[in-house]
Amino acid sequence: MDKKYVYFFGEGKADGSKDMKDLLGGKGAGLAEMTNLGIPVPPGFTITTEACIYYYKNGRYPDGLEEEIENNLSRLEKVMKKGFGDVENPLLVSVRSGAKISMPGMMDTVLNLGLNEETLVGLAKNAGSERFAFDAYRRFIQMFSNIVLGMEHSDFEKEMEKLKEEKMVNLDIELTAEDLKELVGRFKQLVKQKREIDFPTSPKEQLKMAIDAVFNSWNNPRAVAYRELNNIPHDLGTAVNVQAMVFGNMGSDSGTGVAFTRDPATGENRFYGEYLINAQGEDVVAGIRTPLPLERLNQEMPEVYSDLVTVYKRLETHYRDMLDLEFTFEKGRLFLLQTRSGKRTAQAAVKIAVDMVKEGLITKEEAIKRIDPHSIDQLLHPQIDPKACITVIAKGLPASPGASCGQVVFTAPDACRWVEEGKQVILVRLETSPEDISGMDAAQGILTARGGMTSHAAVVARGMGKCCVVGCEEITVDEERKMFTVKDKVIREGDFITLDGSSGNVILGQVKTIPPELKGEFSELLSWADEIRRLGIRANADTPRDAERARKFGAEGIGLCRTEHMFFEEERLPIMQQMILAKEEKERREALNKLLPMQKEDFREIFKAMDGLPVTIRLLDPPLHEFLPKHEELAVEIATLRATSGDEKRISELSHLLDKVEALKEMNPMLGFRGCRLGVVYPEISEMQIRAIFRAAIEVTQEGFKVIPEIMIPVLGLATEVRLLKDLITQVAKEEMERSGVYLNYSVGVMIELPRACVTADEIAHYAEFFSFGTNDLTQTTFGFSRDDIEGKFLQKYIEKGVLDNNPFAVLDRRGVGDLVRIGVERGRKTRPDLKIGICGEHGGEPSSIEFCHQVGLDYVSCSPFRVPIARLAAAHAKLKFPKNKDMVDECLVID
Amino acid sequence: MDKKYVYFFGEGKADGSKDMKDLLGGKGAGLAEMTNLGIPVPPGFTITTEACIYYYKNGRYPDGLEEEIENNLSRLEKVMKKGFGDVENPLLVSVRSGAKISMPGMMDTVLNLGLNEETLVGLAKNAGSERFAFDAYRRFIQMFSNIVLGMEHSDFEKEMEKLKEEKMVNLDIELTAEDLKELVGRFKQLVKQKREIDFPTSPKEQLKMAIDAVFNSWNNPRAVAYRELNNIPHDLGTAVNVQAMVFGNMGSDSGTGVAFTRDPATGENRFYGEYLINAQGEDVVAGIRTPLPLERLNQEMPEVYSDLVTVYKRLETHYRDMLDLEFTFEKGRLFLLQTRSGKRTAQAAVKIAVDMVKEGLITKEEAIKRIDPHSIDQLLHPQIDPKACITVIAKGLPASPGASCGQVVFTAPDACRWVEEGKQVILVRLETSPEDISGMDAAQGILTARGGMTSHAAVVARGMGKCCVVGCEEITVDEERKMFTVKDKVIREGDFITLDGSSGNVILGQVKTIPPELKGEFSELLSWADEIRRLGIRANADTPRDAERARKFGAEGIGLCRTEHMFFEEERLPIMQQMILAKEEKERREALNKLLPMQKEDFREIFKAMDGLPVTIRLLDPPLHEFLPKHEELAVEIATLRATSGDEKRISELSHLLDKVEALKEMNPMLGFRGCRLGVVYPEISEMQIRAIFRAAIEVTQEGFKVIPEIMIPVLGLATEVRLLKDLITQVAKEEMERSGVYLNYSVGVMIELPRACVTADEIAHYAEFFSFGTNDLTQTTFGFSRDDIEGKFLQKYIEKGVLDNNPFAVLDRRGVGDLVRIGVERGRKTRPDLKIGICGEHGGEPSSIEFCHQVGLDYVSCSPFRVPIARLAAAHAKLKFPKNKDMVDECLVID
Repeated sequence: MDKKYVYFFGEGKADGSKDMKDLLGGKGAGLAEMTNLGIPVPPGFTITTEACIYYYKNGRYPDGLEEEIENNLSRLEKVMKKGFGDVENPLLVSVRSGAKISMPGMMDTVLNLGLNEETLVGLAKNAGSERFAFDAYRRFIQMFSNIVLGMEHSDFEKEMEKLKEEKMVNLDIELTAEDLKELVGRFKQLVKQKREIDFPTSPKEQLKMAIDAVFNSWNNPRAVAYRELNNIPHDLGTAVNVQAMVFGNMGSDSGTGVAFTRDPATGENRFYGEYLINAQGEDVVAGIRTPLPLERLNQEMPEVYSDLVTVYKRLETHYRDMLDLEFTFEKGRLFLLQTRSGKRTAQAAVKIAVDMVKEGLITKEEAIKRIDPHSIDQLLHPQIDPKACITVIAKGLPASPGASCGQVVFTAPDACRWVEEGKQVILVRLETSPEDISGMDAAQGILTARGGMTSHAAVVARGMGKCCVVGCEEITVDEERKMFTVKDKVIREGDFITLDGSSGNVILGQVKTIPPELKGEFSELLSWADEIRRLGIRANADTPRDAERARKFGAEGIGLCRTEHMFFEEERLPIMQQMILAKEEKERREALNKLLPMQKEDFREIFKAMDGLPVTIRLLDPPLHEFLPKHEELAVEIATLRATSGDEKRISELSHLLDKVEALKEMNPMLGFRGCRLGVVYPEISEMQIRAIFRAAIEVTQEGFKVIPEIMIPVLGLATEVRLLKDLITQVAKEEMERSGVYLNYSVGVMIELPRACVTADEIAHYAEFFSFGTNDLTQTTFGFSRDDIEGKFLQKYIEKGVLDNNPFAVLDRRGVGDLVRIGVERGRKTRPDLKIGICGEHGGEPSSIEFCHQVGLDYVSCSPFRVPIARLAAAHAKLKFPKNKDMVDECLVID
Repeated sequence: MDKKYVYFFGEGKADGSKDMKDLLGGKGAGLAEMTNLGIPVPPGFTITTEACIYYYKNGRYPDGLEEEIENNLSRLEKVMKKGFGDVENPLLVSVRSGAKISMPGMMDTVLNLGLNEETLVGLAKNAGSERFAFDAYRRFIQMFSNIVLGMEHSDFEKEMEKLKEEKMVNLDIELTAEDLKELVGRFKQLVKQKREIDFPTSPKEQLKMAIDAVFNSWNNPRAVAYRELNNIPHDLGTAVNVQAMVFGNMGSDSGTGVAFTRDPATGENRFYGEYLINAQGEDVVAGIRTPLPLERLNQEMPEVYSDLVTVYKRLETHYRDMLDLEFTFEKGRLFLLQTRSGKRTAQAAVKIAVDMVKEGLITKEEAIKRIDPHSIDQLLHPQIDPKACITVIAKGLPASPGASCGQVVFTAPDACRWVEEGKQVILVRLETSPEDISGMDAAQGILTARGGMTSHAAVVARGMGKCCVVGCEEITVDEERKMFTVKDKVIREGDFITLDGSSGNVILGQVKTIPPELKGEFSELLSWADEIRRLGIRANADTPRDAERARKFGAEGIGLCRTEHMFFEEERLPIMQQMILAKEEKERREALNKLLPMQKEDFREIFKAMDGLPVTIRLLDPPLHEFLPKHEELAVEIATLRATSGDEKRISELSHLLDKVEALKEMNPMLGFRGCRLGVVYPEISEMQIRAIFRAAIEVTQEGFKVIPEIMIPVLGLATEVRLLKDLITQVAKEEMERSGVYLNYSVGVMIELPRACVTADEIAHYAEFFSFGTNDLTQTTFGFSRDDIEGKFLQKYIEKGVLDNNPFAVLDRRGVGDLVRIGVERGRKTRPDLKIGICGEHGGEPSSIEFCHQVGLDYVSCSPFRVPIARLAAAHAKLKFPKNKDMVDECLVID
């Protein structure tokens, strides 16, 4: 049998169904399904995507297509009891494109096709209105010329305006049949003039041209670009829907409208929509007349409304989803023109899914699957009020979502001072460094000119759940003169700006924001996710406040508590510097002894906040020079002093400091003297931290809290590093526990963030009781990418050129980094089958990466507190997609 | 049967043999073997290492040991026809330690044991000299007290000097029997005074004490430290040799000496040694009397000499090696006291091995196995004359071997200028950068205060085969004032120093050096190695001169020709900078067009030098900012100008340059915008290089040379990077070949230097025709170690603390980096079974790493020209040790 290229629908029966979206497109499948359900749909037929693909490959229709169109057209004529081109009783049709995925740039709709000077007469007679017929004709010419002939819509609008002026009327509706007839003539003249053709009169020619236009629009530049951008394959093709016209503009008992089966903004279970009386679809879109709410229809035309309600209920029950409907009623008779899954806000999506479970429409698993974990990010941060009118002055990378507004300041101390004075500020920096932490904490939001999605500012801001826009290269920051410029605008200290961390927009002035809500349905959905997921969810939290927030969001422990931020606090930094500048161990220990009680206090509060849950504390990680002034700044200061005052004493002091900074200076600090290397060379530093942890844990235990400390060793590549530090931990733990008589269950583990740690995981697991993959650094070393350097530089180019699909610091690179993770997991568990394994890089809060973590058999993920709900949901998604306990990614299995 | 703890030797038959070194130690096994060969050896017995180990574990002798010693002593008495402690005919013995591996710090030798006031009389009578007997006794007391009782040797010397003063004599020999008797009394008094014991008189007690002392010396701190340092297991234990005394000091027909069966310095096949008449062994060591050459013995005592010749020939033939002998003749009768493999210079080792093959003593394979590849390094560079008297003022890392002397200069331009003026210079820098290349090339040697074994200075110097000492942190370099200080010394520009790149010594003044010789035997040995090895050997060479040198040393091609050095030349750097500062592609291309002919010339000469051999050319590797002035230097210059002159124009110029430097600045340049990333983002840069390669290759082919170009893409982590650049290469190659009509065989490959490239090697091999492992960078990313930063900082500490066994930049880390190499090889060959794979990191010239490369199945190694001979030999060693084609390291197989 020959391939079938055309699918008919009409008279309660369709060749297709809702499951044939690939072949019939979304629109065609919906029309077929509705027809089969007995819902009133104007009959018609769908030309398949395969026909389109054939056309595109071969430059002509496949054999038999024309005949099939002919046959289906005849069938349509029979069903409609009208003739295509029949002067007495003309059949008019609409032609619409309909790909599987809807796509801007595709040809949209041509209505009233089949009209010409002759059929016009029949239409007028049947409708009982000559004016209606001419209005339909001028609309057809306008649409056809625009969409099929590629002419400008505005040219026709101008012509119509001119006529209205001549006739001295204001509204289209005031034009008479005669006026419209005149207009039709002028439109045809316009076509002749601009396109050098007579406007086609043969309905069949019109149809052929419209079908070709749909096919061709598949490859117009805008559609191609859209597919490129959204990774939609180019060989899907589009279907073409040819459907008998019904008219919403046949008088006051006709109309057209759109509706959602539930509120798309809130998710509330109420029928929601708008309509226009005596109008065709385009009038709604054009926005000239204000549509009425559907409630009015209930009053005005209760029968039509009641039919519509019956239809929407039938459809929603059938599709088990919130739907978007297009309808028309012609002389009181209802027709559905389209149905599809309705677009909704994240908030609505959650409410609808939960409600539908309660209504028995869908299962909990289906409800979970329907919520894209990425989307719920917007439920957790304040948002720019979508109704607000805004002036976007620049756009950076959307580093940490939410919206915030405040007065611009340019230094961290300024931020703190202004906030103390009761102001709200946005901290604007070239880039941030750990010294800026307190200022970042004080500010409402952070804007940097440099850095990428995992730059210091971005990571810290996400950890704080604070709105942040980074890498905004359009702005030129002059920190010295406390101003930044963008194009011709100058923004000075104290000026108000608003940041949108979800879009990266930098907005002038103060904009209203909407606070985040964690609604009951959201919490309920997440509790279902918790029942399903296998992965544990922890949070990265460095402060008691973060810890509390994480717990509130459902974290089951802290997976990463960084200890270095604690040393940047104002009173501690000088002691830290004293420790670093110490010439010998004794002096170093003196400084450390001063830090010990402070560090202990930090841990006490975190342990209390996490009562009963495990807390993984990482020993000092960054290189020591991060705690000292910058080399270049010192060098410049000295040079300036030398050239001017000659204050020899000060020069000598600074030179001495410079010498130490010089000695600690590193070409590649990321690969330098940091992490456990510090503790191996200066065990007294680690010892202080370990002692602080145990003293805090013991004290808090004595106060009645349950503490589960887990000590994590960072940046290791050699099993002996772990052995040495574990010995130290064991010794200090023993001392502190014996001294107090309080014995704690604690464990010692490692952060796996270097390729060597992955491949030697079997050796490391002899000493480590848990692994936590630090995939930020692991991505850096596996790719040889410095995240500080590449994100602002060539990463974007790499994505544009298709070298990378994603930023690997945002989405875990399964093939490379993931394979090393897999090796680490397998080898680690070979030595210690019950090894607990997690991840605490940025990827721990990213859905696709969480899926990988599930597949590769990790025990938990840890992410910033604000991403905990996302991670809970994503973990449930992963489990639903890969239900087996360990369901390794294919490429990994193939390779080894 | 009980365990045997004591092995007898004597009367032409021994319980042991040369193969029992583990049990009897080196000395005991040698004595047993010589006895079995019928060579005159004073009889005796060896207490096994097992007895020592038991003693150490249990704090007492094993059961039966005392009895065995007793029995063997009786047997010795019988053989010697003397009695231990017999007053008439006393047996005296020597007691010596003898571990499997000789070790400083171990107890050495006690002679004349068995003497006391009574046996002394018998000895005097038998020797016919009372003076001899007293002399023997005072020597015994001195040695025993020093070695067994732990007293200071010098205390006894002082006593003797005092006596000589009292007796008003100058020489020991002038002391009479009576004087010596007096001395014995004083010695005993000294022991009583210092150790509060009477000097032991019972021979058996003396023997027991001496044996215990040997056992205990196994664990004295010096011996333990030595074993730690040299990775000798602590549980080997030492044997104890108890042997009947023979006396070289029994008059003018007695004597003692040492000999080598061949010349240990040159390897010449001549009997070589020294002796002293009327002396005991210690007299030779003490160096008080000047020994005579053995030729004299031939004249003085031809029979003894002839016996010695017979013995040495017998032994050398038996051991098939050059031997070191200790002998004594007592009243004209020859005894051998020890034999072992003789220490020799590298030069001698090579000559002896080759000669022995020709003499039919050993096979070629044995000859090769006997030459440690590490040792031949010293045959390839000038050496400090070992006879020279030197003043070492500082010690750095021995970065590139050889010795050189010259006048100190502190900048590269100074180096060039002074050399032009006909001077020889040593370039002293804080650290070097690519801009210093010309100065390094001009200098005789390079000294830096910073940097490790793979710092810029070290790598470049080794490539140039130039003497280099780096990381000499004792010196303080003041480049501005053109001086450096070390301790209290100041060395200024123009002062002479000498560097020893093999030891790291910095020597004051001019020291004589010995030029390198590549002798006939050496070349012959290497040709045998070539017959055996499976690995190909290539060289890393960036200049025609390097290429020629590499070829001379036996390289079979160039495995790495770096192209970046070419852009640092004086006339090119400004054009390079113009290219980098270009605002758009057009401007960039203009600069590149100027560089193209220059780059082409570079390649022409290299291709000609390597006529008929493959040349692997790597595309531009370093980040672009390396070609610009340093950020800090500019910032300081601007600050100085601002503070003084206010030359606004200059400030503005510099500020503009600073902006660009700022834009290109990287936190971690090692992980930044470099390697193929440059070519992906700016294809025009790669295009210029590729065009230069093909134009050069085509021209040189037209001139009749055979060119085999291999283009290598650096620093890649993604298969798409390779695809994009390979497409570019293919296109340019096609253009150039079609234009000229000359068609070349060329190949395109990659440098595998990132972990991601290893794990995705299967994808990469779709495009790459060869892999070359860049293990310098791979070590950096696998360990997360920046070689620039860690070598001067914590690496040394890591080795001291046993965290690392070696510097992983010198010796390839098999377990971590090696495992990634293995994964890369396996996955690469899975896609492309005939994939050619090499290594071009520093490890390519390091013997243990070469062994790994052989095991893991690489096709070739590439190293600096001066290491090519080492690599040839090491590759043969590897093949002899692992003869199967692919003989994977065990741990790798176990893991996956």
